[in-house]
Amino acid sequence: MNAMTPDANSAAERLVHVPLGERAYDILIGPGLIKRAGDEIAARLKGRKAAIITDVHVAPLYLDSLVASLERVGIQAATLVLPAGEKTKSFEHLMTVCDTVLGARIERNDAVIALGGGVIGDLAGFAAGVVRRGVRFVQVPTSLLSQVDSSVGGKTGINTHHGKNLVGVFHQPDLVLADTGVLDTLSEREFRAGYAEVAKYGLIDKPDFFAWLEANWQAVFAGGAERIEAIATSCRAKADVVVADERETGPRALLNLGHTFGHALEAATAYDSSRLVHGEGVAIGMVLAHEFSARLNLASPDDARRVEAHLKAVGLPTRMGDIPGALPPAETLMDAIAQDKKVKSGKLTFILTRGIGQSFIADDVPASEVLSFLKEKHPQ
Amino acid sequence: MNAMTPDANSAAERLVHVPLGERAYDILIGPGLIKRAGDEIAARLKGRKAAIITDVHVAPLYLDSLVASLERVGIQAATLVLPAGEKTKSFEHLMTVCDTVLGARIERNDAVIALGGGVIGDLAGFAAGVVRRGVRFVQVPTSLLSQVDSSVGGKTGINTHHGKNLVGVFHQPDLVLADTGVLDTLSEREFRAGYAEVAKYGLIDKPDFFAWLEANWQAVFAGGAERIEAIATSCRAKADVVVADERETGPRALLNLGHTFGHALEAATAYDSSRLVHGEGVAIGMVLAHEFSARLNLASPDDARRVEAHLKAVGLPTRMGDIPGALPPAETLMDAIAQDKKVKSGKLTFILTRGIGQSFIADDVPASEVLSFLKEKHPQ
Repeated sequence: MNAMTPDANSAAERLVHVPLGERAYDILIGPGLIKRAGDEIAARLKGRKAAIITDVHVAPLYLDSLVASLERVGIQAATLVLPAGEKTKSFEHLMTVCDTVLGARIERNDAVIALGGGVIGDLAGFAAGVVRRGVRFVQVPTSLLSQVDSSVGGKTGINTHHGKNLVGVFHQPDLVLADTGVLDTLSEREFRAGYAEVAKYGLIDKPDFFAWLEANWQAVFAGGAERIEAIATSCRAKADVVVADERETGPRALLNLGHTFGHALEAATAYDSSRLVHGEGVAIGMVLAHEFSARLNLASPDDARRVEAHLKAVGLPTRMGDIPGALPPAETLMDAIAQDKKVKSGKLTFILTRGIGQSFIADDVPASEVLSFLKEKHPQ
Repeated sequence: MNAMTPDANSAAERLVHVPLGERAYDILIGPGLIKRAGDEIAARLKGRKAAIITDVHVAPLYLDSLVASLERVGIQAATLVLPAGEKTKSFEHLMTVCDTVLGARIERNDAVIALGGGVIGDLAGFAAGVVRRGVRFVQVPTSLLSQVDSSVGGKTGINTHHGKNLVGVFHQPDLVLADTGVLDTLSEREFRAGYAEVAKYGLIDKPDFFAWLEANWQAVFAGGAERIEAIATSCRAKADVVVADERETGPRALLNLGHTFGHALEAATAYDSSRLVHGEGVAIGMVLAHEFSARLNLASPDDARRVEAHLKAVGLPTRMGDIPGALPPAETLMDAIAQDKKVKSGKLTFILTRGIGQSFIADDVPASEVLSFLKEKHPQ
């Protein structure tokens, strides 16, 4: 897998096509893609100008390489390096990105390129969706989480004081370049957090993939063919859901498995990443979703134990008690859930499951049941 | 036309359907629609919440009536009254509008309602397109210009220091309520400016409509059936172009007839509405486009004279010399045109014509020809 030549690279590389009609695009997955980005972009886009949006963590590692690769094919690139972190997804930074993109005289056929994780992808994608009412957009995700989740599907957005991702657009990328080589520079914790979303695709509707992960997770963590395979399978799973429901009016909600509890825990820890990052919240949330489904007699408790055993094996937190520091009482967690979700006459929409790989959307979950369950799992 | 009962209203009313698939919508045109807005909105939208965006000029005239009409059908409306004028189309005001809409807990099936002219429609439409990645949107245009142009077609946006309308989204309304009764409160000058866009539809590809306007313009200005007929024909014309090219990749550019020269004149007068408003710039621009086409031996000079005679008859300016105050030299106007347009190897894209109602897109107009023409029309 430490391929040194372009030929060897393409042998290791995977392509996932997202068939969205006139918005169809390719996801390339493999090592060395940042160095080859110029060729891949030039082959697909007419424009010869680009604006690269990145952050202070990623820029020192990959920005020069990306700019050089674009220059080699005659694409001029303006660059903007933003602060890292969730706070960057703001109206103020959206203005700055739009200003940079307009200042670079990006036209409809030119591209905004997001080089970074989910924060940069969501922000740059939003700008690409609104400058001139939409210009081309290329995602170069540099975290496992963004490679398997946020870079695919076209959801973009920023946060406001009313909540996360409440302002944005659907704007599909024209190309996603998931350079798996960059994952070697991630911290173990960050890689694990992204892995929670990989496991999620198995739990939604791919029991065989979940079993494969149970058997092969160490190779996925070590890098190599299994890692590329896991990312490609995740991208394909995400793409299938997006194609079925591009604008999230129905089945796309399945992608939220584990996220309702997860979001509540993120809110309860004030989005303090030293205590809990998104993927960790999702890991705990997925275990809770399986346990809650068992409590409702929908699934066997064995499934919840199997999910927990796997996530624990890879080193992810699986219980509320695994989060350092005190959590607020169950009632406060319940308030966060109610705020995240529409509550209609005391009923919540929830992703539940009948077992591994058998999740479904339930739109009539009694809020009182959720609260009882939370009190049981998190006695004060 | 001073119908006092709903029945008489509906007799006078026109409906233009815009068949855009799942984004299809109706435009209702007639008197008394603001008072009936609640019924029309409730009949089409599932949500029971709304946020009305308006400005300080329009609010005292119609806001109470609109809010009362919504309340009668059980729709709760938050309201936001903004400063009037082009400067309101800014990032700062977009933030304020999004904040109001989120604060009103507007969900996907609830509506943002724009009550005002083009500025309010463009700004509120942009917010409706991005809050929760798109909520329902109702246009209640209160100027002739917005009734026949900006409220139809889904273009939304704001201005930046790089230029006008450079940031925005395509977000079709779910309903347009063009209350023709409100036009009686417009100033003569504002009504005339909107009329320039009405005449434009005749000049693009409807020679019979242009001839009808020549014969009936006084009745259109006086109000009554002819006014409703002229607005409905304009909305139908705009809708046809939008359906053919929703995202402006081709024929929609025909709607820019007269706008290239017009925008340059607006820029040359620093968007000072005491000297020139948009519709007046378009009027002069349409005469120039016909004269320029004649100069290129594409059309007869008689057509340019006929266009000028009609616009002059209704009281619109038709020559650069009609603009109060001094204009910059032709070279400066040319710079503004070049900045407005993409100039490729000295060639410009321009809407030209072969005669009344025979306009077309020319993408190879030599910039040097435009400059010579401007020098001839505007000798220093």
